[in-house]
Amino acid sequence: MSEAVQTLEGWYALHDFRSINWASWRYVSKEERKEAIEELQQFMQDWQSVENDKLGSTAVYSIVGQKADLVFMHLRETMEELNELETAFNKTAFAQHLLPAYSYVSVVELSSYMAKPGSDPMQNPEVVARLKPILPKTKHICFYPMNKRREGNDNWYMLSMEERREFMRSHGMIGRSYAGRVKQIITGSVGLDDWEWGVTLFSDDALTFKKLVYEMRFDEASARFGEFGEFYVGNLLDPAKAEAMLALPSDK
Amino acid sequence: MSEAVQTLEGWYALHDFRSINWASWRYVSKEERKEAIEELQQFMQDWQSVENDKLGSTAVYSIVGQKADLVFMHLRETMEELNELETAFNKTAFAQHLLPAYSYVSVVELSSYMAKPGSDPMQNPEVVARLKPILPKTKHICFYPMNKRREGNDNWYMLSMEERREFMRSHGMIGRSYAGRVKQIITGSVGLDDWEWGVTLFSDDALTFKKLVYEMRFDEASARFGEFGEFYVGNLLDPAKAEAMLALPSDK
Amino acid sequence: MSEAVQTLEGWYALHDFRSINWASWRYVSKEERKEAIEELQQFMQDWQSVENDKLGSTAVYSIVGQKADLVFMHLRETMEELNELETAFNKTAFAQHLLPAYSYVSVVELSSYMAKPGSDPMQNPEVVARLKPILPKTKHICFYPMNKRREGNDNWYMLSMEERREFMRSHGMIGRSYAGRVKQIITGSVGLDDWEWGVTLFSDDALTFKKLVYEMRFDEASARFGEFGEFYVGNLLDPAKAEAMLALPSDK
Amino acid sequence: MSEAVQTLEGWYALHDFRSINWASWRYVSKEERKEAIEELQQFMQDWQSVENDKLGSTAVYSIVGQKADLVFMHLRETMEELNELETAFNKTAFAQHLLPAYSYVSVVELSSYMAKPGSDPMQNPEVVARLKPILPKTKHICFYPMNKRREGNDNWYMLSMEERREFMRSHGMIGRSYAGRVKQIITGSVGLDDWEWGVTLFSDDALTFKKLVYEMRFDEASARFGEFGEFYVGNLLDPAKAEAMLALPSDK
Amino acid sequence: MSEAVQTLEGWYALHDFRSINWASWRYVSKEERKEAIEELQQFMQDWQSVENDKLGSTAVYSIVGQKADLVFMHLRETMEELNELETAFNKTAFAQHLLPAYSYVSVVELSSYMAKPGSDPMQNPEVVARLKPILPKTKHICFYPMNKRREGNDNWYMLSMEERREFMRSHGMIGRSYAGRVKQIITGSVGLDDWEWGVTLFSDDALTFKKLVYEMRFDEASARFGEFGEFYVGNLLDPAKAEAMLALPSDK
Repeated sequence: MSEAVQTLEGWYALHDFRSINWASWRYVSKEERKEAIEELQQFMQDWQSVENDKLGSTAVYSIVGQKADLVFMHLRETMEELNELETAFNKTAFAQHLLPAYSYVSVVELSSYMAKPGSDPMQNPEVVARLKPILPKTKHICFYPMNKRREGNDNWYMLSMEERREFMRSHGMIGRSYAGRVKQIITGSVGLDDWEWGVTLFSDDALTFKKLVYEMRFDEASARFGEFGEFYVGNLLDPAKAEAMLALPSDK
Repeated sequence: MSEAVQTLEGWYALHDFRSINWASWRYVSKEERKEAIEELQQFMQDWQSVENDKLGSTAVYSIVGQKADLVFMHLRETMEELNELETAFNKTAFAQHLLPAYSYVSVVELSSYMAKPGSDPMQNPEVVARLKPILPKTKHICFYPMNKRREGNDNWYMLSMEERREFMRSHGMIGRSYAGRVKQIITGSVGLDDWEWGVTLFSDDALTFKKLVYEMRFDEASARFGEFGEFYVGNLLDPAKAEAMLALPSDK
Repeated sequence: MSEAVQTLEGWYALHDFRSINWASWRYVSKEERKEAIEELQQFMQDWQSVENDKLGSTAVYSIVGQKADLVFMHLRETMEELNELETAFNKTAFAQHLLPAYSYVSVVELSSYMAKPGSDPMQNPEVVARLKPILPKTKHICFYPMNKRREGNDNWYMLSMEERREFMRSHGMIGRSYAGRVKQIITGSVGLDDWEWGVTLFSDDALTFKKLVYEMRFDEASARFGEFGEFYVGNLLDPAKAEAMLALPSDK
Repeated sequence: MSEAVQTLEGWYALHDFRSINWASWRYVSKEERKEAIEELQQFMQDWQSVENDKLGSTAVYSIVGQKADLVFMHLRETMEELNELETAFNKTAFAQHLLPAYSYVSVVELSSYMAKPGSDPMQNPEVVARLKPILPKTKHICFYPMNKRREGNDNWYMLSMEERREFMRSHGMIGRSYAGRVKQIITGSVGLDDWEWGVTLFSDDALTFKKLVYEMRFDEASARFGEFGEFYVGNLLDPAKAEAMLALPSDK
Repeated sequence: MSEAVQTLEGWYALHDFRSINWASWRYVSKEERKEAIEELQQFMQDWQSVENDKLGSTAVYSIVGQKADLVFMHLRETMEELNELETAFNKTAFAQHLLPAYSYVSVVELSSYMAKPGSDPMQNPEVVARLKPILPKTKHICFYPMNKRREGNDNWYMLSMEERREFMRSHGMIGRSYAGRVKQIITGSVGLDDWEWGVTLFSDDALTFKKLVYEMRFDEASARFGEFGEFYVGNLLDPAKAEAMLALPSDK
């Protein structure tokens, strides 16, 4: 039996992707649209208050292409809070014009492949801050879920701890070379959702997502063991931009 | 020919996942919503009566994320009862606001890899209790279906009974180390549904699902032979919480 | 080139799985429901007449879980009859409340792996009866489609006739040990539908499906070469039970 | 680098599978149905005129099972004609009661594995006739798309021309043994649709499809290298049969 | 660790495939259709202006078969522009009659396998023109996404730079032999969408797509390492052709 690496977990995460039903949005009256936008902005403001109080964090982005129009990424202390938050949102007027697109349930995770032996990571304020992070408000977001492969000779979970640590060290070096340009949040989802991890990247330059993920693909940890789900890429949406996105030309 | 392990079966199981159609739920009148909630609560009470009479068991949870909003997990003595139960529910007013999300048909199963030779397990009250279990009412639920792999050199069904027993022993040891923190119900579905087993986990700490499933993934029985379907995770829903979940702000 | 086994074919088969649209069924008037049920019962009676005349056979079962609510399994002499039968049914009032779920087109098949050389099987009344069978009316049904695998070293179609015959002999022995408890109808679908065979099992004990399919999975013919599609399991539906299933509480 | 076999191409092909929305078809008035059927019959007549003028060919069949209710197989000289043809059809009244089911874009193809060296096949009237064929009007049709496998040791495209020619020779011999009973049209779709070829079979005996495809499966070209998509099987539909299929009992 | 090849990136790309909802398009009044077409033509004109100003490029084609009816391929300087462009289009009257079909997010890419060492490619006006190309207006378009395989011994990302360069050289030679007949735009999508590259081909002869892709399939870079997504093929659509495509016979 191989030995599982120890992991540390922080806030639970819900990535909530939605598509806009433009036909129904156009169908309702200008007044209804106005009220719905104001309610959405109120929700965004409430989420910001939670973030200000360090009780969670939320990021809102518009998504490019047909996979979705919006993503709401929420971090909260408990599964119950995530559930209440999505239910409250589903009851809003705006949500009646949204179609489900994709969602992901996970929990912020740090693996201790590189941990110093003997130290208690939870005594490290930097570690705690990474487990309960305030989500960046960069211009762009990228999300994808992934697995470590378990096929024939390419079975990550049959490797020794030493082998895995070596693979992850090389992998981490690529990541570090992008420090300052990309902020990465790893969330673990084994037992919670269909893939093993979710990767959320934040950057002011969308090209950096491509450069980083492509460079990593040549790394053996990805080349032999990485399995990837769908990729979503988007642009920051603040309350003002949300209003512009949703306003119809005829409403002006 | 490899030898099949003997299994014991108890109650049939139906995991019934549903999504709420919030648009139609908002559309009907406050009175219709009230009646629908009361009817749902009546059904929940009836299921509780069946459980009190030890004629079956039911657990109701809300699901986090877009895969579903609710799961009704029912255990009953016969396939006919499960069928009648789902048909009766489908005729309720509340069910008209639900969309199908996923379902799973199986039967509570104990495998006898570890059985003492010579003993008749059905004479063991503890075994019988495990075959017709009262479902826990923990804060959280986790469900996923799984197969044992049959690919090239990783073919579970070509292993000898001895090899399988050894794999399952090691696997079971991880499970036992979580005793008291997680309650696990294994249901067999070969010949009944698309995967070979359903795993339902109950715990008061959702993180335990992740810790348990992740630790097991490094176990050879999972690393080489485990194939997993979709994972669902949720929070306990009693009649009062169901009412709160379904109430619209404007209904207060 | 490997040699194809000779097969005998009888009636064509259509497995027609449907889900009930309960919302529309509830929406129409009590009278419309009554007429629709009567028309359905008339169709069931007509199918029974065809069966009585030995011109075909039909079995109707309710399906457990969300995959479908009903299955109509029809055997007929020609493809045209199956087509006319489904078209006529699609025009009924009841069919307007049904959603497509799954269907399977095949033909009753006997393979001659075990045939005695020199004999003409079509002179054998038992063989003919098995090719044009009256479908059992057991309490339960189980259906799944399957393929023989063609992957790397596990390529059924690259085996010699001798090897395949030996695998099928062992396979058949398991089946025979269930004689009297399960009735099995094999339908071939190469060139007709997406899998190579459909397996329909009939039994008064649903657990027998699980026991049989699980035991066979350890048989090399299944362990190395079996690929399985979706499994459907259900309960017998006669005209009276159909009426009970479809009646709304408020209609009484 | 392996050498690509030379291919000859003729008319472009569109296989257009549709399902009937019986609920909407029943909903409109008897007069609307009548007009829609007449318009459909007019289209079928126009397609026949094109065929009479040898500017293309069209076959119309009803499909058995839920995958589709109808297939329109069109051959035309250019992609633009196919596009105009489907757009014109989409504007008809009848098309408003059809749901998309599946489509396939390809081009009639002959491969020259068996071509005599030195000859110019386009000077051969028989070759030209096979590239621009008038579609048979047999009782039954069978369609499926396929690929040649590229996996590990079973990689068709890494074989030498000699090896491929030998496989295709044996493959073709099976096909020829069905001459007179089955007419086969191969259409190539590399670069045009998701599979590499479409196979359309025409026969007066649907069982022949099963016999032919099953026998070929034991041929190494199929056993090791064939990957198959969905299979569709149906019955000939002329204007009179189309009217019978679409007429409601209440319209008489 | 293998070494990633350097890539150059230009304009971001959105391939936006849509299907027409002919039923709703027929349902609205002739006047509404006329206004919707005029608005669409205005959008097409605006996109042309952007292209004239060399701030981006747009190609519009109709798609053959049921996968989609239209594709809008947009190149723009930023992700934000692509997002605004699709949102503005989604608000039009015409878009209310469109259904999502498929989309692809990527960025125009040149790989430097063949780059001369020591040169700065961005100083080369030809390179810059290829990174920010004006899309051809050929009669036909072909689009498909692709990956380089990572399976067992066929793992592109475990090859050395030298091996990959050799494979790509041979691959490129086939492409060059089609120069003048096909214009190819490669867009990279690692980290942006689900496949690694999108390939868009433009030609006045649709058969060339088939010839080119088929010939390449025998090239080891494709035979062993190419994995392909869905293929879309279509015909050029200018504002006049769009009007003809959308006009109903009864509108004349």
